[in-house]
Amino acid sequence: MNASNITFSLRLPEHKLPEGPFWLKQKQKFHLETYTTVLGSKIPNLEIGYETYGKLNSDKSNAILICHYFSGSSNAAGKYTPEDIEPGYWDTIIGPNKAIDTNKFFVISSDILCNINAYDPNIITTGPMSMNPETQKIYGPDFPMTTPEDLVHVQKKLVESFGIKKLYCVAGPSLGAMQSLQWAATFPDFVDRIIPVIGAGLETPPLVVAALDFWAEPIYLDPKWNLGYYEKQQGPDVGFKLALRVLTHQALSPAWAESVGGRGFRLKDPSQNMNAHFYVQDALMYIARLRFRFLDPLHYLRVIKMAQIFSIRNKVKNLKAKILMISCSSDLLMLPEYSKQSFEELKTLNKDVQYFEIAGRGGHMDGIFSIEKASDVIRDFLI
Amino acid sequence: MNASNITFSLRLPEHKLPEGPFWLKQKQKFHLETYTTVLGSKIPNLEIGYETYGKLNSDKSNAILICHYFSGSSNAAGKYTPEDIEPGYWDTIIGPNKAIDTNKFFVISSDILCNINAYDPNIITTGPMSMNPETQKIYGPDFPMTTPEDLVHVQKKLVESFGIKKLYCVAGPSLGAMQSLQWAATFPDFVDRIIPVIGAGLETPPLVVAALDFWAEPIYLDPKWNLGYYEKQQGPDVGFKLALRVLTHQALSPAWAESVGGRGFRLKDPSQNMNAHFYVQDALMYIARLRFRFLDPLHYLRVIKMAQIFSIRNKVKNLKAKILMISCSSDLLMLPEYSKQSFEELKTLNKDVQYFEIAGRGGHMDGIFSIEKASDVIRDFLI
Repeated sequence: MNASNITFSLRLPEHKLPEGPFWLKQKQKFHLETYTTVLGSKIPNLEIGYETYGKLNSDKSNAILICHYFSGSSNAAGKYTPEDIEPGYWDTIIGPNKAIDTNKFFVISSDILCNINAYDPNIITTGPMSMNPETQKIYGPDFPMTTPEDLVHVQKKLVESFGIKKLYCVAGPSLGAMQSLQWAATFPDFVDRIIPVIGAGLETPPLVVAALDFWAEPIYLDPKWNLGYYEKQQGPDVGFKLALRVLTHQALSPAWAESVGGRGFRLKDPSQNMNAHFYVQDALMYIARLRFRFLDPLHYLRVIKMAQIFSIRNKVKNLKAKILMISCSSDLLMLPEYSKQSFEELKTLNKDVQYFEIAGRGGHMDGIFSIEKASDVIRDFLI
Repeated sequence: MNASNITFSLRLPEHKLPEGPFWLKQKQKFHLETYTTVLGSKIPNLEIGYETYGKLNSDKSNAILICHYFSGSSNAAGKYTPEDIEPGYWDTIIGPNKAIDTNKFFVISSDILCNINAYDPNIITTGPMSMNPETQKIYGPDFPMTTPEDLVHVQKKLVESFGIKKLYCVAGPSLGAMQSLQWAATFPDFVDRIIPVIGAGLETPPLVVAALDFWAEPIYLDPKWNLGYYEKQQGPDVGFKLALRVLTHQALSPAWAESVGGRGFRLKDPSQNMNAHFYVQDALMYIARLRFRFLDPLHYLRVIKMAQIFSIRNKVKNLKAKILMISCSSDLLMLPEYSKQSFEELKTLNKDVQYFEIAGRGGHMDGIFSIEKASDVIRDFLI
């Protein structure tokens, strides 16, 4: 008997699973003949996946774009099949009569460029593991550098494909918060409102930039890394699993660490055995193993780089959108103080900005699992 | 020109260097013919270094033991030579007329067993890189497992070598806080007071146990690790430097990350170049390089393990010492909430316990660099 017989969850007891009924939805594909990156590289046959909830009204004025978090996807609400264990990550706030009311709004949720879940059959993305039509080989590490601006440029082309001229709102958690702010900075006349949730304000704070290095660099120590030249699903697995544990740990909280058994253990007492583990250690290994198989290291490293360089500081004067900034009280990665500082800075610049803090014990993950606590403030903001 | 031309400091501008005059001191060596570990292994010729400040009074009732932090040493106050750049780490509170007043108290400060600075000429320690007299080879990974209890058992023998029958106080930051609590739990009749600073209360919290894995595991990914069988100073350097960056990062704070230049950069803009770095990234690499050369990975891994397993929970009812628990408001590793929880728990058990929080922006490091902010409360506690 070993730890692989146990299951561990990222949820706390108070993080209730969304209750149905759930709608069933279909993943769609958006295709661009050629996309030219902000830094000037051409990417032919760019594809990203997306899904929609609700109906676009006749004057196309009711569209809301949802941008996903680091390891997320377009799967923001509803299910693909009745057998799906969970609905999309923000199902508690997206749906009929919910905070983002699909009786009123047309919601578009898209995968990003370089989505890290490269091998997940439900994800459609273009990135390092895509085929380069010119060479008929995967790009690998030679895939062009992309930036947070590229993420929103590609999304804008998707949104425009519906004939939409202006978004009612852009919202998203974590990396999705960065995208929503990037939208407001890059296309100030195209977006009326943004809801950045568990972001860190106007730019990724330096301490977070440094933390993100540790999500990345265990990969480089793995002999299978080979500077990024590896075949699909043959990449650096040992270094990647350690990297995923580091990332997962930063999104969690003291209460989570207790909830999975904390300093409890099976069989051998870690206090008396060099190689025995407490449950909290087993839990992070378990979660990394579970997440690992659908993820690609090169895609993952590209998204880390985009998160590190995110900054709209030099564009902040352009901002026109109304802003609702939401943070979580126990977040140890995107500390509430980061959002508060940006909130104060935006107020000083006379921007229309509100701040709301979700009280909870779940750390960064509360921005997903406890988002329903912000339902009222989101509902009011969208009126 | 590159980042190696710049120097980066762990201090914030408000962390003032201690001002002299400094006394000059000599490192002493304590030797044990044989030490038997708590788990039953024999270590022959055990040696640890120590130093003393002030004078032991005639009834030997004025001795205070200082226990060092993870990467520290006995060097708690004063200088070894006038040329030393800085005095010991707590010089601002240890000295004539300071909070721990060496006109009144006799202070003993010791290196721990398995001190991580195995190659520092100022450190005397026994650990994996020591010679096993039986084999005439270094122990390497075969050095016996040691526990936090062993740290204090060895210190007790040092203290008793002075004829001391009771300690007036045991104090220390971080790992030193754990040792002070371990002292009070293991030898309740031998210690009157303890001052655990930037510890985490009665045991290492599970979230910290997990974090400590990430201080360790990059080492295992380095091909030079070789399961710990390597020659002195020929160990896993690349993995170890990454490990040291992870550790250093967790002891710091948002204000520190800004203070070293934050998102500034030299020459190449990281926002437009895959391999360029922000100053905050350079700073952590610089500091890891500086610290690296005196440290040994096996010693380091042993101290991590001891920090992970620390717990006096099952001995808490034995505690007799008066306790002054000190935490730092911006500490992101040993969150103030951990100390507060233990403080409440000890109060419930009718223990004589006080809690003080150092307000500051320096994170965990404030327990070293801003300890003078606790001078008054420490002085009062020692009356």
